[in-house]
Amino acid sequence: MDYLGRQKNIREQLGLRRLDGLLISHLPNIRYLCGFTGSAGLLLVEAAGCRFFTDSRYDTQAREEVVGARVLVSQANIAGAMAERIGRRKGAGRNAVRKTMGIEANHLTVAEKKRLAALLRASHTLKDTPGLVERARMVKDEDELGRLLVAVRLGATLFERAVETIRPGVREVEVAAEMEYAARRAGAEEMSFGTIVASGARSALPHGRASVAEIKKGGFVVCDWGVILSGYCSDQTRTVWVGKITPEARAAYEAVREAQQAALDAVRPGVKVGEVDSAARNVLRKAGLGRYFTHSTGHGVGIEIHEPPRVAAGQDEALAPGMVITIEPGVYLPGKWGIRIEDMVAVTERGCEVLTPTSKELVVV
Amino acid sequence: MDYLGRQKNIREQLGLRRLDGLLISHLPNIRYLCGFTGSAGLLLVEAAGCRFFTDSRYDTQAREEVVGARVLVSQANIAGAMAERIGRRKGAGRNAVRKTMGIEANHLTVAEKKRLAALLRASHTLKDTPGLVERARMVKDEDELGRLLVAVRLGATLFERAVETIRPGVREVEVAAEMEYAARRAGAEEMSFGTIVASGARSALPHGRASVAEIKKGGFVVCDWGVILSGYCSDQTRTVWVGKITPEARAAYEAVREAQQAALDAVRPGVKVGEVDSAARNVLRKAGLGRYFTHSTGHGVGIEIHEPPRVAAGQDEALAPGMVITIEPGVYLPGKWGIRIEDMVAVTERGCEVLTPTSKELVVV
Repeated sequence: MDYLGRQKNIREQLGLRRLDGLLISHLPNIRYLCGFTGSAGLLLVEAAGCRFFTDSRYDTQAREEVVGARVLVSQANIAGAMAERIGRRKGAGRNAVRKTMGIEANHLTVAEKKRLAALLRASHTLKDTPGLVERARMVKDEDELGRLLVAVRLGATLFERAVETIRPGVREVEVAAEMEYAARRAGAEEMSFGTIVASGARSALPHGRASVAEIKKGGFVVCDWGVILSGYCSDQTRTVWVGKITPEARAAYEAVREAQQAALDAVRPGVKVGEVDSAARNVLRKAGLGRYFTHSTGHGVGIEIHEPPRVAAGQDEALAPGMVITIEPGVYLPGKWGIRIEDMVAVTERGCEVLTPTSKELVVV
Repeated sequence: MDYLGRQKNIREQLGLRRLDGLLISHLPNIRYLCGFTGSAGLLLVEAAGCRFFTDSRYDTQAREEVVGARVLVSQANIAGAMAERIGRRKGAGRNAVRKTMGIEANHLTVAEKKRLAALLRASHTLKDTPGLVERARMVKDEDELGRLLVAVRLGATLFERAVETIRPGVREVEVAAEMEYAARRAGAEEMSFGTIVASGARSALPHGRASVAEIKKGGFVVCDWGVILSGYCSDQTRTVWVGKITPEARAAYEAVREAQQAALDAVRPGVKVGEVDSAARNVLRKAGLGRYFTHSTGHGVGIEIHEPPRVAAGQDEALAPGMVITIEPGVYLPGKWGIRIEDMVAVTERGCEVLTPTSKELVVV
């Protein structure tokens, strides 16, 4: 991973934004910039270089993982230890110019900022600098695209386990168990999010986590899952039917499939994400299902399962080569059933590449 | 679950703190107060009652789950929809008194507060009100204690699977896979956190997530795991030895076990959590291992895996009946090995009840 290149990129932003430093507190951004995978740390990026502050639980791990930043380990209070090192004693050098430190306003809590401001009040002014690293992370480099592809491929193999397991009388959670077990056996670090296996009327809940409900004949089962491999997330949804399918259900499935294809067809550099959303929405509207498509079409994915850009109505972020997004339209008839189909797609120089290899033919079990 | 009682408790706090309302944005706090388990929502608690705002993905789910609050569903921008409903039009009623709304400063981000302040500037003043619901959550009621006990018991059964699986040549992640599979099959919603299976020198990493490393003869394997069942977390650690054990390793294990017992013995109402930490730390110090105990002794656990109080040096929160905490001292010799033993314990009227049923005799496989 090109940690040094990423750090250089952020350091260049400091000058443009008149910052003396940027304090990175969001763990996925820390991982992106220096490789640290633990759960406690602060990365300070300054023109002179980077310093990484963590606590004693991560002493060994930080020294092993962190690239391009000096590692400084404190007992417990990481922000306090950082302030002690970079701040000025109260009253000392009273007339010296205070430095300006950018903070991640989208992640730092109100209370954390207050504590930080108190700790650094003699030496630093804090400036809200939201989304700077996230913006850099939107475009994936070759290493990241490679890792994402491997994660997507591993994730896709789990659908076979789902199809083998889904039967009338089986509990949703058993399907999730089989998928997650296979993922772990294949080396996945964890699932990207709580696996969704939503059957019958529960399939109309867009976020219906696998429950102890038994799968019954005559309904859809929405499976939405992902794995994390080498720190990168996959995200995929397939919907299967159990029993004898009705013409209405099949027609709705085909409409969602067409909508998903229309959105995929719209993905290329320069296109606004809102247009991709419209492409899917228009198909469903024409099929009379527009009002049942109650969420946005997709989102960026990488170190986090949900990253910018939001592929949603009215969003005008333009797609660029290297962006990786999900395309996942769905329709949900409350109390009846739901359908969603989701792939991951990478924007290329000339168009896009669908990363998810799984067929979208309706599976009936 | 006594959602109405919990809401009443928070409403009583409004008067004491001179608040017209409290805006709950932290999802575990929302779940605690009204039962909603989804990933997007805002709960507004006012003297007149509670209103729950969510987006269209959670329309059905919110109406099914939420107790004691009016459910209001918007298209996507939940905060905007809330502001439209409770705010005043700019300029209208210019001289009316603005209301004071408490916000969860420990959870709301700097950017979220800024957006909220802009949306409500004509009608509300925001006031940082950190930790109000967390304080209520520290003491568990009977329903919660019941759920925690069931989660702990299910979690404990997974250790058998770990012991059956741990063998030289087996990868750490396979051990985690077996434990997680058994958890899911038994109905667990998910694991409380990324399962730790850390073998050999990796056992010296206090947070060594299960990796693809092969377990080798002649070392400890630290297993730290938990399940979420009915929304409540379990948390447990056991350390096993693989192969022929050395006297030094056995002595260190027994020292950690004594330290853990000393801390458990210290748990009763009125005792400060810092004293519980000292009890463990003193034993390890006398055994010459004090400087290898690099983290705190424990933490509260409930809807979240880490909740107040922190059972750490110098913390003066007094234990009270109904609190549930972990007791988990450990020692870590970098590059060599690590040991940790962790139980969950409930504070009772007269002392405490160790919830975790698993033996702490050293298991050698």
